[in-house]
Amino acid sequence: MRDSFHGELSKINEILVRMTDLARVAMDSATTALLTSDLRLAEAVISGDAQIDALHRELEERSMDLLARQQPVAVDLRTIIGGLRMVSSLERMGDLARHVATIARMRYPDCAVPADLKPIFAEAAQVADKLVVKTRDVLVERDVSLAAEIAKDDDRMDELHRELFARVLDDNWSHGMEAAIDVTLLGRFYERYADHAVSLARRMVQLVTGVLPTNA
Amino acid sequence: MRDSFHGELSKINEILVRMTDLARVAMDSATTALLTSDLRLAEAVISGDAQIDALHRELEERSMDLLARQQPVAVDLRTIIGGLRMVSSLERMGDLARHVATIARMRYPDCAVPADLKPIFAEAAQVADKLVVKTRDVLVERDVSLAAEIAKDDDRMDELHRELFARVLDDNWSHGMEAAIDVTLLGRFYERYADHAVSLARRMVQLVTGVLPTNA
Repeated sequence: MRDSFHGELSKINEILVRMTDLARVAMDSATTALLTSDLRLAEAVISGDAQIDALHRELEERSMDLLARQQPVAVDLRTIIGGLRMVSSLERMGDLARHVATIARMRYPDCAVPADLKPIFAEAAQVADKLVVKTRDVLVERDVSLAAEIAKDDDRMDELHRELFARVLDDNWSHGMEAAIDVTLLGRFYERYADHAVSLARRMVQLVTGVLPTNA
Repeated sequence: MRDSFHGELSKINEILVRMTDLARVAMDSATTALLTSDLRLAEAVISGDAQIDALHRELEERSMDLLARQQPVAVDLRTIIGGLRMVSSLERMGDLARHVATIARMRYPDCAVPADLKPIFAEAAQVADKLVVKTRDVLVERDVSLAAEIAKDDDRMDELHRELFARVLDDNWSHGMEAAIDVTLLGRFYERYADHAVSLARRMVQLVTGVLPTNA
Protein backbone atom coordinates (compact mmCIF):
# COMPACT_ATOMS: atom_id res chain seq x y z
CA MET A 1 0.00 0.00 0.00
CA ARG A 2 2.83 2.43 0.79
CA ASP A 3 4.32 1.64 -2.62
CA SER A 4 1.11 2.48 -4.41
CA PHE A 5 0.89 5.59 -2.24
CA HIS A 6 4.30 6.78 -3.33
CA GLY A 7 3.42 5.85 -6.89
CA GLU A 8 0.41 8.14 -6.58
CA LEU A 9 2.58 10.89 -5.10
CA SER A 10 5.06 10.70 -7.95
CA LYS A 11 2.15 10.76 -10.41
CA ILE A 12 1.10 14.06 -8.83
CA ASN A 13 4.63 15.37 -9.19
CA GLU A 14 4.64 14.29 -12.85
CA ILE A 15 1.51 16.34 -13.45
CA LEU A 16 3.18 19.39 -11.88
CA VAL A 17 6.20 18.94 -14.14
CA ARG A 18 3.99 18.42 -17.19
CA MET A 19 2.03 21.59 -16.37
CA THR A 20 5.30 23.49 -15.94
CA ASP A 21 6.37 22.34 -19.41
CA LEU A 22 3.02 23.37 -20.89
CA ALA A 23 3.10 26.77 -19.17
CA ARG A 24 6.61 27.27 -20.53
CA VAL A 25 5.69 26.37 -24.11
CA ALA A 26 2.54 28.50 -23.83
CA MET A 27 4.49 31.66 -22.97
CA ASP A 28 7.20 30.95 -25.56
CA SER A 29 4.57 30.48 -28.26
CA ALA A 30 2.54 33.46 -27.09
CA THR A 31 5.66 35.63 -27.35
CA THR A 32 6.44 34.39 -30.86
CA ALA A 33 2.81 34.97 -31.86
CA LEU A 34 3.02 38.47 -30.37
CA LEU A 35 6.30 39.53 -31.94
CA THR A 36 5.72 37.97 -35.38
CA SER A 37 1.93 38.55 -35.61
CA ASP A 38 1.32 34.82 -36.00
CA LEU A 39 -2.44 34.37 -35.78
CA ARG A 40 -2.46 30.58 -35.88
CA LEU A 41 0.09 30.30 -33.11
CA ALA A 42 -1.88 32.79 -30.99
CA GLU A 43 -5.01 30.70 -31.45
CA ALA A 44 -3.13 27.52 -30.58
CA VAL A 45 -2.02 29.08 -27.28
CA ILE A 46 -5.56 30.25 -26.54
CA SER A 47 -7.16 26.87 -27.19
CA GLY A 48 -4.25 24.97 -25.64
CA ASP A 49 -4.89 26.57 -22.24
CA ALA A 50 -7.74 24.08 -21.73
CA GLN A 51 -5.13 21.33 -21.44
CA ILE A 52 -3.46 23.09 -18.50
CA ASP A 53 -6.86 23.61 -16.86
CA ALA A 54 -7.68 19.91 -17.32
CA LEU A 55 -4.42 18.88 -15.64
CA HIS A 56 -5.24 21.32 -12.83
CA ARG A 57 -8.52 19.50 -12.20
CA GLU A 58 -6.87 16.10 -12.49
CA LEU A 59 -4.23 17.03 -9.92
CA GLU A 60 -6.87 18.35 -7.51
CA GLU A 61 -8.95 15.19 -7.83
CA ARG A 62 -5.98 12.88 -7.36
CA SER A 63 -4.81 14.88 -4.34
CA MET A 64 -8.21 14.86 -2.65
CA ASP A 65 -8.55 11.16 -3.33
CA LEU A 66 -5.12 10.46 -1.88
CA LEU A 67 -5.77 12.57 1.21
CA ALA A 68 -9.09 10.84 1.83
CA ARG A 69 -7.90 7.28 1.22
CA GLN A 70 -4.43 7.34 2.74
CA GLN A 71 -4.59 10.11 5.33
CA PRO A 72 -0.91 10.94 4.96
CA VAL A 73 1.04 12.85 7.61
CA ALA A 74 4.32 14.77 7.86
CA VAL A 75 6.29 15.20 4.64
CA ASP A 76 3.76 13.31 2.49
CA LEU A 77 0.96 15.56 3.67
CA ARG A 78 3.05 18.66 3.06
CA THR A 79 3.93 17.42 -0.43
CA ILE A 80 0.28 17.00 -1.39
CA ILE A 81 -0.79 20.34 0.07
CA GLY A 82 2.25 21.99 -1.53
CA GLY A 83 1.21 20.52 -4.88
CA LEU A 84 -2.29 21.96 -4.50
CA ARG A 85 -0.79 25.39 -3.96
CA MET A 86 1.68 25.10 -6.81
CA VAL A 87 -0.98 24.00 -9.25
CA SER A 88 -2.80 27.32 -8.80
CA SER A 89 0.31 29.23 -9.83
CA LEU A 90 0.76 27.01 -12.88
CA GLU A 91 -2.83 27.51 -13.90
CA ARG A 92 -2.41 31.29 -13.63
CA MET A 93 0.78 31.12 -15.71
CA GLY A 94 -1.23 29.40 -18.43
CA ASP A 95 -3.88 32.13 -18.17
CA LEU A 96 -1.26 34.86 -18.51
CA ALA A 97 0.25 33.25 -21.63
CA ARG A 98 -3.30 33.10 -23.00
CA HIS A 99 -3.77 36.83 -22.24
CA VAL A 100 -0.60 37.63 -24.22
CA ALA A 101 -1.86 35.51 -27.13
CA THR A 102 -5.26 37.22 -26.97
CA ILE A 103 -3.67 40.65 -27.42
CA ALA A 104 -1.60 39.27 -30.33
CA ARG A 105 -4.80 37.96 -31.96
CA MET A 106 -6.74 41.16 -31.28
CA ARG A 107 -4.20 43.30 -33.16
CA TYR A 108 -3.61 40.87 -36.04
CA PRO A 109 -2.52 41.48 -38.81
CA ASP A 110 -0.83 44.39 -37.03
CA CYS A 111 1.65 43.83 -34.27
CA ALA A 112 0.65 44.95 -30.76
CA VAL A 113 4.28 45.76 -29.93
CA PRO A 114 6.02 48.67 -31.71
CA ALA A 115 9.25 47.54 -33.42
CA ASP A 116 11.55 49.47 -31.07
CA LEU A 117 10.05 47.71 -28.04
CA LYS A 118 10.33 44.20 -29.42
CA PRO A 119 13.80 43.63 -27.93
CA ILE A 120 12.45 44.39 -24.44
CA PHE A 121 9.63 41.88 -24.81
CA ALA A 122 12.01 39.35 -26.35
CA GLU A 123 14.21 39.67 -23.28
CA ALA A 124 11.25 39.53 -20.89
CA ALA A 125 10.20 36.28 -22.57
CA GLN A 126 13.75 34.98 -22.29
CA VAL A 127 13.92 35.82 -18.58
CA ALA A 128 10.51 34.20 -18.05
CA ASP A 129 11.76 31.11 -19.85
CA LYS A 130 14.92 30.91 -17.74
CA LEU A 131 12.80 31.26 -14.61
CA VAL A 132 10.50 28.43 -15.61
CA VAL A 133 13.37 26.13 -16.58
CA LYS A 134 15.02 26.70 -13.19
CA THR A 135 11.74 26.27 -11.37
CA ARG A 136 11.31 22.99 -13.22
CA ASP A 137 14.78 21.93 -12.05
CA VAL A 138 13.84 22.73 -8.46
CA LEU A 139 10.73 20.60 -9.00
CA VAL A 140 12.50 17.64 -10.61
CA GLU A 141 15.97 17.69 -9.04
CA ARG A 142 14.99 19.30 -5.73
CA ASP A 143 18.01 21.54 -6.31
CA VAL A 144 17.24 24.33 -3.86
CA SER A 145 20.50 26.15 -4.63
CA LEU A 146 18.75 27.60 -7.69
CA ALA A 147 16.55 29.79 -5.47
CA ALA A 148 19.07 32.65 -5.41
CA GLU A 149 19.45 32.61 -9.21
CA ILE A 150 15.69 32.65 -9.57
CA ALA A 151 15.48 35.75 -7.38
CA LYS A 152 18.08 37.44 -9.60
CA ASP A 153 16.18 36.61 -12.78
CA ASP A 154 13.06 38.05 -11.21
CA ASP A 155 14.92 41.29 -10.41
CA ARG A 156 15.80 41.55 -14.10
CA MET A 157 12.14 41.10 -15.00
CA ASP A 158 11.23 43.98 -12.69
CA GLU A 159 13.85 46.17 -14.41
CA LEU A 160 12.42 45.33 -17.83
CA HIS A 161 8.94 46.12 -16.54
CA ARG A 162 10.10 49.55 -15.34
CA GLU A 163 11.89 50.11 -18.66
CA LEU A 164 8.60 49.54 -20.49
CA PHE A 165 6.83 52.16 -18.37
CA ALA A 166 9.67 54.61 -19.01
CA ARG A 167 9.36 54.08 -22.77
CA VAL A 168 5.61 54.58 -22.80
CA LEU A 169 5.92 57.73 -20.67
CA ASP A 170 8.76 59.16 -22.75
CA ASP A 171 7.89 62.37 -24.59
CA ASN A 172 9.08 60.72 -27.79
CA TRP A 173 6.43 57.98 -27.61
CA SER A 174 4.87 58.07 -31.06
CA HIS A 175 2.83 54.87 -31.18
CA GLY A 176 -0.46 56.21 -29.88
CA MET A 177 -2.72 55.22 -27.05
CA GLU A 178 -3.75 51.73 -28.11
CA ALA A 179 -0.14 50.55 -28.26
CA ALA A 180 0.52 52.24 -24.90
CA ILE A 181 -2.31 50.28 -23.28
CA ASP A 182 -1.23 47.03 -24.92
CA VAL A 183 2.36 47.50 -23.79
CA THR A 184 1.25 48.37 -20.25
CA LEU A 185 -0.90 45.25 -19.95
CA LEU A 186 1.62 42.99 -21.69
CA GLY A 187 4.34 44.20 -19.34
CA ARG A 188 2.16 43.30 -16.40
CA PHE A 189 1.38 39.84 -17.81
CA TYR A 190 5.07 38.95 -18.15
CA GLU A 191 5.84 40.31 -14.71
CA ARG A 192 3.00 38.34 -13.08
CA TYR A 193 4.04 35.21 -14.96
CA ALA A 194 7.54 35.57 -13.50
CA ASP A 195 6.11 36.21 -10.02
CA HIS A 196 4.18 32.96 -10.20
CA ALA A 197 7.28 31.05 -11.32
CA VAL A 198 9.18 32.50 -8.35
CA SER A 199 6.36 31.61 -6.00
CA LEU A 200 6.35 28.04 -7.36
CA ALA A 201 10.07 27.70 -6.76
CA ARG A 202 9.76 29.11 -3.23
CA ARG A 203 7.01 26.64 -2.39
CA MET A 204 9.19 23.82 -3.67
CA VAL A 205 12.19 24.99 -1.63
CA GLN A 206 9.91 25.14 1.39
CA LEU A 207 8.90 21.52 0.79
CA VAL A 208 12.49 20.35 0.49
CA THR A 209 14.02 22.40 3.32
CA GLY A 210 10.99 23.03 5.53
CA VAL A 211 11.64 26.78 5.36
CA LEU A 212 10.01 29.32 3.04
CA PRO A 213 12.91 31.35 1.58
CA THR A 214 12.55 35.12 1.90
CA ASN A 215 15.24 35.98 -0.63
CA ALA A 216 13.69 34.08 -3.51
CA MET B 1 -12.15 15.00 20.24
CA ARG B 2 -14.71 15.50 17.46
CA ASP B 3 -15.97 18.57 19.30
CA SER B 4 -12.54 20.10 19.44
CA PHE B 5 -12.12 19.15 15.78
CA HIS B 6 -15.23 21.03 14.78
CA GLY B 7 -14.17 23.89 17.01
CA GLU B 8 -10.94 24.02 15.02
CA LEU B 9 -12.86 23.89 11.75
CA SER B 10 -15.08 26.77 12.74
CA LYS B 11 -11.99 28.71 13.83
CA ILE B 12 -10.66 28.27 10.29
CA ASN B 13 -13.95 29.51 8.90
CA GLU B 14 -13.78 32.52 11.23
CA ILE B 15 -10.37 33.40 9.82
CA LEU B 16 -11.77 33.23 6.27
CA VAL B 17 -14.62 35.56 7.24
CA ARG B 18 -12.22 37.92 9.02
CA MET B 19 -9.96 38.01 5.96
CA THR B 20 -12.99 38.70 3.75
CA ASP B 21 -13.88 41.66 5.98
CA LEU B 22 -10.31 42.96 5.85
CA ALA B 23 -10.11 42.57 2.07
CA ARG B 24 -13.39 44.45 1.79
CA VAL B 25 -12.29 47.34 4.00
CA ALA B 26 -8.93 47.43 2.20
CA MET B 27 -10.52 47.98 -1.22
CA ASP B 28 -13.06 50.47 0.15
CA SER B 29 -10.29 52.48 1.79
CA ALA B 30 -8.00 52.19 -1.23
CA THR B 31 -10.79 53.59 -3.42
CA THR B 32 -11.41 56.50 -1.06
CA ALA B 33 -7.66 57.17 -0.93
CA LEU B 34 -7.56 57.04 -4.72
CA LEU B 35 -10.52 59.29 -5.42
CA THR B 36 -9.85 61.85 -2.68
CA SER B 37 -6.01 61.79 -2.80
CA ASP B 38 -5.84 60.77 0.84
CA LEU B 39 -2.20 59.92 1.50
CA ARG B 40 -2.66 58.69 5.07
CA LEU B 41 -5.44 56.35 4.09
CA ALA B 42 -3.38 55.00 1.19
CA GLU B 43 -0.51 54.29 3.57
CA ALA B 44 -2.85 52.62 6.04
CA VAL B 45 -4.04 50.23 3.30
CA ILE B 46 -0.46 49.50 2.25
CA SER B 47 0.76 48.72 5.77
CA GLY B 48 -2.50 46.99 6.71
CA ASP B 49 -1.97 44.32 4.06
CA ALA B 50 0.49 42.60 6.42
CA GLN B 51 -2.47 41.71 8.65
CA ILE B 52 -4.15 39.82 5.81
CA ASP B 53 -0.88 38.04 5.03
CA ALA B 54 -0.49 37.07 8.70
CA LEU B 55 -3.99 35.57 8.76
CA HIS B 56 -3.12 33.71 5.56
CA ARG B 57 -0.17 32.06 7.30
CA GLU B 58 -2.22 31.36 10.42
CA LEU B 59 -4.92 29.64 8.39
CA GLU B 60 -2.37 27.53 6.52
CA GLU B 61 -0.68 26.44 9.75
CA ARG B 62 -3.95 25.58 11.47
CA SER B 63 -5.12 23.64 8.41
CA MET B 64 -1.92 21.63 8.11
CA ASP B 65 -1.99 20.91 11.82
CA LEU B 66 -5.60 19.77 11.64
CA LEU B 67 -4.96 17.56 8.62
CA ALA B 68 -1.95 15.94 10.29
CA ARG B 69 -3.52 15.42 13.72
CA GLN B 70 -7.09 14.47 12.82
CA GLN B 71 -6.81 13.02 9.32
CA PRO B 72 -10.30 14.12 8.35
CA VAL B 73 -12.22 12.59 5.45
CA ALA B 74 -15.24 13.45 3.29
CA VAL B 75 -16.84 16.84 3.89
CA ASP B 76 -14.40 17.85 6.64
CA LEU B 77 -11.44 17.19 4.37
CA ARG B 78 -13.06 19.11 1.53
CA THR B 79 -13.78 22.02 3.88
CA ILE B 80 -10.14 22.30 4.94
CA ILE B 81 -8.79 21.99 1.40
CA GLY B 82 -11.44 24.43 0.18
CA GLY B 83 -10.30 26.88 2.85
CA LEU B 84 -6.69 26.59 1.69
CA ARG B 85 -7.79 27.49 -1.83
CA MET B 86 -10.02 30.34 -0.73
CA VAL B 87 -7.31 31.88 1.40
CA SER B 88 -5.13 32.39 -1.69
CA SER B 89 -7.87 34.42 -3.36
CA LEU B 90 -8.32 36.52 -0.23
CA GLU B 91 -4.62 37.18 -0.01
CA ARG B 92 -4.58 38.30 -3.66
CA MET B 93 -7.57 40.58 -3.03
CA GLY B 94 -5.57 42.25 -0.26
CA ASP B 95 -2.63 42.63 -2.66
CA LEU B 96 -4.84 44.22 -5.31
CA ALA B 97 -6.25 46.75 -2.82
CA ARG B 98 -2.64 47.52 -1.87
CA HIS B 99 -1.77 48.06 -5.56
CA VAL B 100 -4.63 50.58 -5.87
CA ALA B 101 -3.40 52.37 -2.73
CA THR B 102 0.16 52.38 -4.09
CA ILE B 103 -0.93 54.21 -7.24
CA ALA B 104 -2.89 56.69 -5.09
CA ARG B 105 0.23 57.33 -3.01
CA MET B 106 2.51 57.58 -6.05
CA ARG B 107 0.42 60.41 -7.57
CA TYR B 108 -0.20 62.30 -4.32
CA PRO B 109 -0.96 65.22 -3.98
CA ASP B 110 -2.42 64.81 -7.47
CA CYS B 111 -5.19 62.36 -8.16
CA ALA B 112 -4.36 59.37 -10.39
CA VAL B 113 -7.91 59.35 -11.75
CA PRO B 114 -9.12 62.25 -13.96
CA ALA B 115 -12.30 63.85 -12.58
CA ASP B 116 -14.54 62.63 -15.40
CA LEU B 117 -13.54 59.01 -14.75
CA LYS B 118 -14.14 59.11 -11.01
CA PRO B 119 -17.77 57.96 -11.33
CA ILE B 120 -16.65 54.81 -13.18
CA PHE B 121 -14.15 53.92 -10.47
CA ALA B 122 -16.68 54.77 -7.77
CA GLU B 123 -19.09 52.31 -9.38
CA ALA B 124 -16.38 49.67 -9.86
CA ALA B 125 -15.61 49.95 -6.15
CA GLN B 126 -19.32 49.69 -5.35
CA VAL B 127 -19.70 46.57 -7.49
CA ALA B 128 -16.59 45.08 -5.88
CA ASP B 129 -18.05 45.82 -2.47
CA LYS B 130 -21.39 44.20 -3.33
CA LEU B 131 -19.53 41.14 -4.59
CA VAL B 132 -17.52 40.78 -1.41
CA VAL B 133 -20.56 41.25 0.82
CA LYS B 134 -22.42 38.51 -1.07
CA THR B 135 -19.40 36.26 -1.05
CA ARG B 136 -19.22 36.77 2.71
CA ASP B 137 -22.89 35.75 2.95
CA VAL B 138 -22.17 32.58 1.00
CA LEU B 139 -19.33 31.93 3.44
CA VAL B 140 -21.30 32.62 6.62
CA GLU B 141 -24.87 31.62 5.71
CA ARG B 142 -24.00 28.99 3.09
CA ASP B 143 -26.64 30.70 0.97
CA VAL B 144 -25.74 29.31 -2.45
CA SER B 145 -28.66 31.08 -4.14
CA LEU B 146 -26.47 34.20 -4.22
CA ALA B 147 -24.22 32.63 -6.87
CA ALA B 148 -26.35 33.89 -9.76
CA GLU B 149 -26.39 37.45 -8.39
CA ILE B 150 -22.65 37.32 -7.97
CA ALA B 151 -22.23 36.35 -11.61
CA LYS B 152 -24.40 39.34 -12.61
CA ASP B 153 -22.35 41.75 -10.52
CA ASP B 154 -19.22 40.40 -12.15
CA ASP B 155 -20.71 41.04 -15.60
CA ARG B 156 -21.24 44.67 -14.58
CA MET B 157 -17.59 44.88 -13.53
CA ASP B 158 -16.53 43.62 -16.96
CA GLU B 159 -18.68 46.32 -18.59
CA LEU B 160 -17.08 49.01 -16.45
CA HIS B 161 -13.65 47.65 -17.35
CA ARG B 162 -14.48 47.89 -21.07
CA GLU B 163 -15.88 51.40 -20.53
CA LEU B 164 -12.54 52.48 -19.06
CA PHE B 165 -10.65 51.20 -22.12
CA ALA B 166 -13.09 53.02 -24.40
CA ARG B 167 -12.53 56.28 -22.52
CA VAL B 168 -8.75 56.01 -22.65
CA LEU B 169 -8.84 55.18 -26.37
CA ASP B 170 -11.29 57.98 -27.18
CA ASP B 171 -9.86 60.71 -29.41
CA ASN B 172 -10.97 63.23 -26.82
CA TRP B 173 -8.71 61.77 -24.12
CA SER B 174 -6.85 64.80 -22.81
CA HIS B 175 -5.23 63.52 -19.63
CA GLY B 176 -1.93 62.38 -21.06
CA MET B 177 -0.07 59.11 -20.97
CA GLU B 178 0.60 58.75 -17.27
CA ALA B 179 -3.11 58.93 -16.43
CA ALA B 180 -3.83 56.49 -19.27
CA ILE B 181 -1.43 53.94 -17.80
CA ASP B 182 -2.77 54.46 -14.28
CA VAL B 183 -6.36 54.03 -15.44
CA THR B 184 -5.45 50.91 -17.43
CA LEU B 185 -3.75 49.26 -14.46
CA LEU B 186 -6.37 50.40 -11.94
CA GLY B 187 -9.11 48.98 -14.16
CA ARG B 188 -7.32 45.67 -14.22
CA PHE B 189 -6.87 45.67 -10.41
CA TYR B 190 -10.60 46.15 -9.78
CA GLU B 191 -11.49 43.53 -12.35
CA ARG B 192 -9.08 40.97 -10.87
CA TYR B 193 -10.35 41.75 -7.37
CA ALA B 194 -13.88 40.96 -8.55
CA ASP B 195 -12.69 37.77 -10.28
CA HIS B 196 -11.17 36.55 -7.02
CA ALA B 197 -14.38 37.32 -5.11
CA VAL B 198 -16.33 35.32 -7.70
CA SER B 199 -13.87 32.46 -7.48
CA LEU B 200 -14.20 32.47 -3.67
CA ALA B 201 -17.98 32.27 -3.90
CA ARG B 202 -17.79 29.45 -6.47
CA ARG B 203 -15.46 27.46 -4.23
CA MET B 204 -17.87 27.93 -1.35
CA VAL B 205 -20.86 26.83 -3.43
CA GLN B 206 -18.85 23.78 -4.46
CA LEU B 207 -18.26 22.95 -0.81
CA VAL B 208 -21.93 23.26 0.08
CA THR B 209 -23.43 21.56 -2.98
CA GLY B 210 -20.55 19.35 -4.10
CA VAL B 211 -20.71 20.91 -7.58
CA LEU B 212 -18.57 23.74 -8.95
CA PRO B 213 -21.04 26.18 -10.56
CA THR B 214 -20.22 27.14 -14.14
CA ASN B 215 -22.53 30.15 -14.28
CA ALA B 216 -21.01 31.94 -11.31
